[in-house]
Amino acid sequence: MTEHGPREYRAVWMEDDELKMIDQRLLPERFEVLGVGEVEAVGRAIKNMTVRGAPAIGAAAAYGMALAALQGKDLRESAELLKSQRPTAHDLFYAVDFMVEALGRGEEPVIAANRYTSQIIEKCRLIGMNGALLIKDGDRIMTHCNAGALATVDYGTALAPIRMAWRGGKKLFVYVSETRPRLQGMKLTAYELKNEEIPHAIIVDGASGHFMRKGVDVVIVGADRVALNGDFANKIGTFEKAVLAKELGIPFYVAAPISTFDFRTESGTDIVIEDRDEDEVLVMDGKRIAPEGSGALNPSFDMTPAKYVTGFITEIGVLGPDQITRVKGARI
Amino acid sequence: MTEHGPREYRAVWMEDDELKMIDQRLLPERFEVLGVGEVEAVGRAIKNMTVRGAPAIGAAAAYGMALAALQGKDLRESAELLKSQRPTAHDLFYAVDFMVEALGRGEEPVIAANRYTSQIIEKCRLIGMNGALLIKDGDRIMTHCNAGALATVDYGTALAPIRMAWRGGKKLFVYVSETRPRLQGMKLTAYELKNEEIPHAIIVDGASGHFMRKGVDVVIVGADRVALNGDFANKIGTFEKAVLAKELGIPFYVAAPISTFDFRTESGTDIVIEDRDEDEVLVMDGKRIAPEGSGALNPSFDMTPAKYVTGFITEIGVLGPDQITRVKGARI
Repeated sequence: MTEHGPREYRAVWMEDDELKMIDQRLLPERFEVLGVGEVEAVGRAIKNMTVRGAPAIGAAAAYGMALAALQGKDLRESAELLKSQRPTAHDLFYAVDFMVEALGRGEEPVIAANRYTSQIIEKCRLIGMNGALLIKDGDRIMTHCNAGALATVDYGTALAPIRMAWRGGKKLFVYVSETRPRLQGMKLTAYELKNEEIPHAIIVDGASGHFMRKGVDVVIVGADRVALNGDFANKIGTFEKAVLAKELGIPFYVAAPISTFDFRTESGTDIVIEDRDEDEVLVMDGKRIAPEGSGALNPSFDMTPAKYVTGFITEIGVLGPDQITRVKGARI
Repeated sequence: MTEHGPREYRAVWMEDDELKMIDQRLLPERFEVLGVGEVEAVGRAIKNMTVRGAPAIGAAAAYGMALAALQGKDLRESAELLKSQRPTAHDLFYAVDFMVEALGRGEEPVIAANRYTSQIIEKCRLIGMNGALLIKDGDRIMTHCNAGALATVDYGTALAPIRMAWRGGKKLFVYVSETRPRLQGMKLTAYELKNEEIPHAIIVDGASGHFMRKGVDVVIVGADRVALNGDFANKIGTFEKAVLAKELGIPFYVAAPISTFDFRTESGTDIVIEDRDEDEVLVMDGKRIAPEGSGALNPSFDMTPAKYVTGFITEIGVLGPDQITRVKGARI
């Protein structure tokens, strides 16, 4: 319990030998929990975005590996199956490798997955603590997509500093860019902010620059993968905000646990960007809104070069893009 | 008739003592023509965006003044009524003033409005001719919102150079940003391009930067009002594209007739930006998509400073931002 109200949910958890997930495709209209009992179903839930957000995908994958182990499935095949669902989020790969190692050591599967998830939650709490120090009383903050509790099991990455600053009594206003095509900003981030009664307004993605010029004090986004040189991939639309922030002199922070950092990827040009189905853009609520005969291009992420990043808010502190190489090899 | 197929419609025209308009709120799903017989109804059609796009709004207003004159209404009141419907598009004011002057000289009302509309069409054709010279064979072009035939009675402003280059046999590819909240890019620009079989893809607004970095040769947008110093207002999202184009070294052109230039406005900070209802963002197809309790901010336009503009494509040639003052006072 906190001054501004309790958090009410986790994105994923284990119960009755099933991985339970809030079905994020249905929010904010319906709050439904989906239970899956096999690793193949966990893979499908990652692919179809029942669970989404890099750290939450990682946690779901950890439980998927635990289910596979409990059911005596081939662990190498299960690992490959999970890793093949989405190409960009690094946490997916990190979590599967974590579980392969833990299971190899003979750790009990659910305990290992719980440990992974607890670590993620704790990392996000620390990201919140570290990031809240960057937020001043009265700040107007812009974020993009959903890097909240729903994306990260709890607290969030980009939303964690906002939550912590708010719970610490700072007055805030958050601009939430709606994040087409799937509207995770409007549907999930606004939902989380409203649940904590943090003042906010939804804006269309194209209005970010307009409001940044009118007055935004800091931009905080999440990340799906950070390369060794500080380039990072995040939801499509992030690159634009980074360029605008630099042009307008606004600090631009990326909140992400070290599990999102891919020390084997030298730079952003090596990050695979997932292209998703054009119908995510052209069809809404089952109804086509585009002219027949017109197609869409639908990259799910974009890559932002390190030069636009003021700092990375991590569980071990705020790192400049040039400090990432120093963290490589650290056991965190 | 042209090599690539005929144009098929005008946005507004006079027939049977009524102003006929394509109802642009229903496209691309339904093609319906609305007829209105009184200036008050013309005002409502401008306000609710049955007719939209600065030059088309101007033409509709001209016919609205003609109807008022034919019906013996008070011309000053009719002029004020029309001008009060939308604050940003300069063509609305220009067209009403044109009609007040013509009617004051005793010109027959419908002939005066037809003359205004013929001039707009001819200006757009010239914008197309002038702008096509800036487009090279094989160019990848990005545009925003709809500055096409639907916005301008015929040809378009931003789309006119694209049409003319295509009809001249140049190979092109057009990135159409969907333009939330009302999706005029997806619904209208893609529709126009598809009707001429010009290759194109719809992208979400947040993907503009991603595709500009991948490779866009030129950005062409329309304008709702251009100030004397070259700052201009256009659909929300334009400013972002202008900043990105400059950052990435891509030429950024604004296509607009001189009727869009407001020589009484010194700079962009003096341009009134229309805020529209938040439900344009929060509700889609009659259904709320945002969480209950979350609000939206919905500026319909943004202002782009002159320093981001490579040139203004007008009916009298391509002007640099610093050349606008020279055109002031010219009788065009």
